[in-house]
Amino acid sequence: MKLTILFGGASFEHEISIVSAITLKEKLSGFDLNFIFCDNDHTFYLIDPSKMKATTFSKGAHKKMPVLTLENGSFVQKSMFGSTKYNDVVLNLIHGGDGEDGTIAALLDFFSIKYIGPRVDASTFSYDKRYTKWLCEAKSIRSVDYQMLTSDDVKDITIKYPLIVKPATLGSSIGVSIVKEESELDYALDSAFEYDKNVIIEPFLEGVKEYNLAGYMADDKIHFSIVEEPQKEEFLDFEKKYMDFSRSEQVLKADISDELVRRLKSTFEKAYRGMFEGALIRCDFFVVNNEVYLNEINPIPGSMANYLFEDFKSSIEALSSSLPHSKRVKVTYEYIHSISSAKGK
Amino acid sequence: MKLTILFGGASFEHEISIVSAITLKEKLSGFDLNFIFCDNDHTFYLIDPSKMKATTFSKGAHKKMPVLTLENGSFVQKSMFGSTKYNDVVLNLIHGGDGEDGTIAALLDFFSIKYIGPRVDASTFSYDKRYTKWLCEAKSIRSVDYQMLTSDDVKDITIKYPLIVKPATLGSSIGVSIVKEESELDYALDSAFEYDKNVIIEPFLEGVKEYNLAGYMADDKIHFSIVEEPQKEEFLDFEKKYMDFSRSEQVLKADISDELVRRLKSTFEKAYRGMFEGALIRCDFFVVNNEVYLNEINPIPGSMANYLFEDFKSSIEALSSSLPHSKRVKVTYEYIHSISSAKGK
Repeated sequence: MKLTILFGGASFEHEISIVSAITLKEKLSGFDLNFIFCDNDHTFYLIDPSKMKATTFSKGAHKKMPVLTLENGSFVQKSMFGSTKYNDVVLNLIHGGDGEDGTIAALLDFFSIKYIGPRVDASTFSYDKRYTKWLCEAKSIRSVDYQMLTSDDVKDITIKYPLIVKPATLGSSIGVSIVKEESELDYALDSAFEYDKNVIIEPFLEGVKEYNLAGYMADDKIHFSIVEEPQKEEFLDFEKKYMDFSRSEQVLKADISDELVRRLKSTFEKAYRGMFEGALIRCDFFVVNNEVYLNEINPIPGSMANYLFEDFKSSIEALSSSLPHSKRVKVTYEYIHSISSAKGK
Repeated sequence: MKLTILFGGASFEHEISIVSAITLKEKLSGFDLNFIFCDNDHTFYLIDPSKMKATTFSKGAHKKMPVLTLENGSFVQKSMFGSTKYNDVVLNLIHGGDGEDGTIAALLDFFSIKYIGPRVDASTFSYDKRYTKWLCEAKSIRSVDYQMLTSDDVKDITIKYPLIVKPATLGSSIGVSIVKEESELDYALDSAFEYDKNVIIEPFLEGVKEYNLAGYMADDKIHFSIVEEPQKEEFLDFEKKYMDFSRSEQVLKADISDELVRRLKSTFEKAYRGMFEGALIRCDFFVVNNEVYLNEINPIPGSMANYLFEDFKSSIEALSSSLPHSKRVKVTYEYIHSISSAKGK
């Protein structure tokens, strides 16, 4: 099948997106792939597949490749001899800012380009961890207790130590710290506020079980990946996460009861339905005292969580043929007509 | 001052946006205004100010005017002799779909064009009435009890009659019905589902007092309009609302206590801060048993609620010089560089 992979973006996760795209080139071999890179200044470049390696971008070699612009229905390469349109389904693989905050979603919606990825409202509720909490509350999904801080707030933390400090809007553990005691707090807050003016504080749960589950909607059914128990470290720092984003080996199923798998899936479905249609998302769960907590929603997971799917290619094919319909409204001028004719014009 | 008014959009409120723009042309006389029209097919046209009348659009005469495209920092008119840039602050005056759902906000963000209007997350929380309820819950703002329905749901309504049925995402009373008894319910639901797959049902509160209050943030302070007690009818149907959108006469202050004004303002501020910066919004309140309820947030009110401000021109000037900073991140390639050099490349 034909698919355009859109990656890069003006985001703290720009490099991670490049790694994801290179990984998918390998995982989706056999597909007819185009690669479109969004540079830091929001210029789009068509990348020659044979040049899909990290140094192409770090050395700026992409700037010699064809520039694309957006038109209704497609990305377009214009030249003196005419124009070439790229109007295949787009896989939005821009992690973090631009890609996950709703900007790219809105841009593709506006230009009527079909895409795999979260729509604007789904982006709002997953990009900002504060709004994920609101979503959980509204949908009666358990999530970890939390406190919000802005950089102007007095630092009156009511959550007990150890705690975890996160910028509200970044992924990939950027700016995240575990704080064991009060003396470490100021440094952790400074690190987090460097990336976002809103910070979220949660208790750091020790001895908790973590499980990841990915899935997507096709033909009005949710199709789930296997459940993974991710590598157990205190948490992955940015560099480890970075390497993690190039994963392509299928992982082992977590050794848990069918009943727990069922409960993870049902929590996933509660979060997904009515909001994430069109996206393949990964939900990260905690299990504490046999209760399932939703920790995070990754609406564009690293390398699309390919390693969790038994048949990743078929999953992408199924999803891309079940994308939400465009919502373009047909405008009429009935009121203006009726008012004009009443005036005798 | 210079200002570009962006109006139209592929929306059920397309005609209302045209009326709003024509009204603002009059209210902002003395400003150096450009008018950019977004057609149903998402083409942008530069409209000659002397042609700013409703029939220009209903008769399609705008299609003969210059087409504009988007570039980093501006709308651009290209011709054989070069290009003209329009890079003034944009007032997003597209009501409903496109304008209030975050699409135009994201588009202007992406192209680094400064604008008056809600950002993407603020759009999500005001465009869809379900998410306004979530916002109210999260910020401890009172709102009317409600029930959500999708077109697949069994119609098991637990709210008592009379009730009000609204499509989740439209403004201007489109698709809204008051239902006095069960026999009228099916027709009301059909009307609402014609516009949206999600519908919200609320009790219809009789004898309630209604108050509207507009405001915006400038220099880190909220600047409020007067409080209006809107014209009392059961509710305004689309045609009456349409005429309502061309209001330009300043209205009288509601005859209420200073204490109630203070409580309306404090509820407004709770909803606004940390979300609606950059926008001039109008909040519509109910007062029941001396309690303030937030009914609706209009993040792009009809003709910008000009009739509620004592000095509307100065308000627009103050807001446009206090717009949120662009969030463009500076990309680095430090991880790719460090990995490449570790590999000896």
